[in-house]
Amino acid sequence: MSSPESNAPVPVPVAPGLIRLAVDCMGGDHGPSITLPACRAFLAAHPEAGLLLVGQPEALKEARSWPRCEIVPASEVVTMDDPVEVALRRKKDSSMRVAIQQLKAAEGEQPRAQACVSAGNTGALMAVSRYLLKTLEGIDRPAIASVMPNQTGGFTTMLDLGANVDCSAEHLLQFAVMGSALVSAVEGKAEPRVGLLNIGEEMIKGNETIKRAGELLRAADAAGQINFHGNVEGNDIFKATADVVVCDGFVGNVALKTAEGLASMISTFIRIEFSRNLLTKLVALLALPILQRFKSRVDHRRLNGAALLGLKGLVFKSHGSADAVAFETALNRAYDAARNRLLDRVHDRIIATLQAMPATADASLPGESGGAGDKAASAAHAA
Amino acid sequence: MSSPESNAPVPVPVAPGLIRLAVDCMGGDHGPSITLPACRAFLAAHPEAGLLLVGQPEALKEARSWPRCEIVPASEVVTMDDPVEVALRRKKDSSMRVAIQQLKAAEGEQPRAQACVSAGNTGALMAVSRYLLKTLEGIDRPAIASVMPNQTGGFTTMLDLGANVDCSAEHLLQFAVMGSALVSAVEGKAEPRVGLLNIGEEMIKGNETIKRAGELLRAADAAGQINFHGNVEGNDIFKATADVVVCDGFVGNVALKTAEGLASMISTFIRIEFSRNLLTKLVALLALPILQRFKSRVDHRRLNGAALLGLKGLVFKSHGSADAVAFETALNRAYDAARNRLLDRVHDRIIATLQAMPATADASLPGESGGAGDKAASAAHAA
Repeated sequence: MSSPESNAPVPVPVAPGLIRLAVDCMGGDHGPSITLPACRAFLAAHPEAGLLLVGQPEALKEARSWPRCEIVPASEVVTMDDPVEVALRRKKDSSMRVAIQQLKAAEGEQPRAQACVSAGNTGALMAVSRYLLKTLEGIDRPAIASVMPNQTGGFTTMLDLGANVDCSAEHLLQFAVMGSALVSAVEGKAEPRVGLLNIGEEMIKGNETIKRAGELLRAADAAGQINFHGNVEGNDIFKATADVVVCDGFVGNVALKTAEGLASMISTFIRIEFSRNLLTKLVALLALPILQRFKSRVDHRRLNGAALLGLKGLVFKSHGSADAVAFETALNRAYDAARNRLLDRVHDRIIATLQAMPATADASLPGESGGAGDKAASAAHAA
Repeated sequence: MSSPESNAPVPVPVAPGLIRLAVDCMGGDHGPSITLPACRAFLAAHPEAGLLLVGQPEALKEARSWPRCEIVPASEVVTMDDPVEVALRRKKDSSMRVAIQQLKAAEGEQPRAQACVSAGNTGALMAVSRYLLKTLEGIDRPAIASVMPNQTGGFTTMLDLGANVDCSAEHLLQFAVMGSALVSAVEGKAEPRVGLLNIGEEMIKGNETIKRAGELLRAADAAGQINFHGNVEGNDIFKATADVVVCDGFVGNVALKTAEGLASMISTFIRIEFSRNLLTKLVALLALPILQRFKSRVDHRRLNGAALLGLKGLVFKSHGSADAVAFETALNRAYDAARNRLLDRVHDRIIATLQAMPATADASLPGESGGAGDKAASAAHAA
């Protein structure tokens, strides 16, 4: 997908090469009180970027005079508790839906935005995105990718983080390819090292699906499509053993939430110990700059902005509870992905992989054997 | 299993009610240099406990004069890298194997020890334990249970942590029952709250196996066999939402290693920031007692000693890299389990559950449909 051309029929003046993000300003726990300050900071930092601010015009009126901005009206809001069905079938004029809609081009035109960002609920965002955008050719299941901090001071990208509870080996291969495209686009690494999350490094570890995924990933490496490091374990996420860690959505979600829970407990413990009495509070005062530097290393706000990969459009999900700094991080990630043509990269890499590994292509036709195989597996499991 | 009687034919004087542990003194990364000091401290702290120290007599000679101790010779050592086959078929006089053997009673006699502790490699320990001890009636698959710290200052018990990569709903029910028995025996909680690890709290979350496991756990709760809290997420492990968190071994192992990796990274970051320059080192000196109190809250040495549950004998696994303090923790856990009759409790609870829920009994005959179902599921997955 290329950037909009200067003669595209858009109602605000758009410079050639301008990249625009569609922002669901109403989503998340806090809505415009968080999203608007983040958008304003983003615009100031990116003179070559534009925003489509989607939501109730009354709630967004302070942004009317902002440069490179347009308010796109949407009368409804998908709440954090709304079931997927409500977002999909009832609230057809929601800010979430209208924001995603901006990624779709009218006949013969360019899309109005190159990426979309929402802090709305994950299930609804994925469902509406899939419905409106459809999946890319060669992708069975879109996946959610996000980053974890690692001890080099950089990030490890993980996927899937919860979109797919059952995955076949072919799905895991697709995740590896999409994750590689994401890291190469956003972090500029040409050949990101891919690790397969397992319970041991040896090839014989894991269940049948994982072992078969290992074979596919080795074959994709041999075919020059990915840079496969091998199996990694949970602790490798933080050791930067791989740039991309691939797993099914159940395992990925558990790993992510486990890490969040532990980090939160540790920060509580540090606070408790440093505020135990007057003396410890005094030491805390002295240690404040040190503790802040420590905290910034693991600040979850630096990690905000998960990519929904495998769709015909770039959708980024912010944490629902994000503050303005965190939401701006999500905007930055979406912007980096758009200007580095992540959509083209995912598309090209998947097509190249399918051509290099025709045996995996059959399983990759949307809605076919992958899904059915999983259902059979589940039925066998439950029997 | 009751404690050995005073007339049992053991070669050292044994007081009535004495509980003995068999210790694989050669296992782990460090062998006797760690296990012997831990055993000595354990004996000093528990005047009513005895130890069978298993290993090469020359390496254990300093313990010859210790009270309530007997050296049991074993000529071989299972290394941390030995494949399961080597431990099982080649090294038949290994300290690991001989230690486990002490849990088996000769015809008409009491077993020589009530629990066994080894820091040897997990795969070998589980395989040799299964081979020598066999599984309890009503248990398809033994599981590995260990504890994570939680923010109440207590522990959350998790299982399975890696023994079983594929689990059926019936296996997860068995884990719930065994974990409840463990927590009630070791922590004295009569009705431990059980949580099912999932990717959301709602009943509709998860794959088919997890949803079916949720149904079984609700039924077991209704039948008065367990105290089922419901679904929990990864972060709940540290929030003490449940006393026992049940999951398959793949997910459990990833969660455990993820937590270990994050904790290790955070401790590295704290060290780096406090040793950045002379000034920060000075503050570190002042903050030392605070940092030590913080550290003791998450000290992995307090968490050492995983239980291999579901066998006809109590086997506890220490971390291979455990120091003497950590190894002593594992001895303490094994001792608590033995004197609180964990083996009887697991047996009684499983039998009661099967009687209360006869529909789950078919799947629970050792070596039958559970395992076969999993193979079918794996085949379907890989197809």
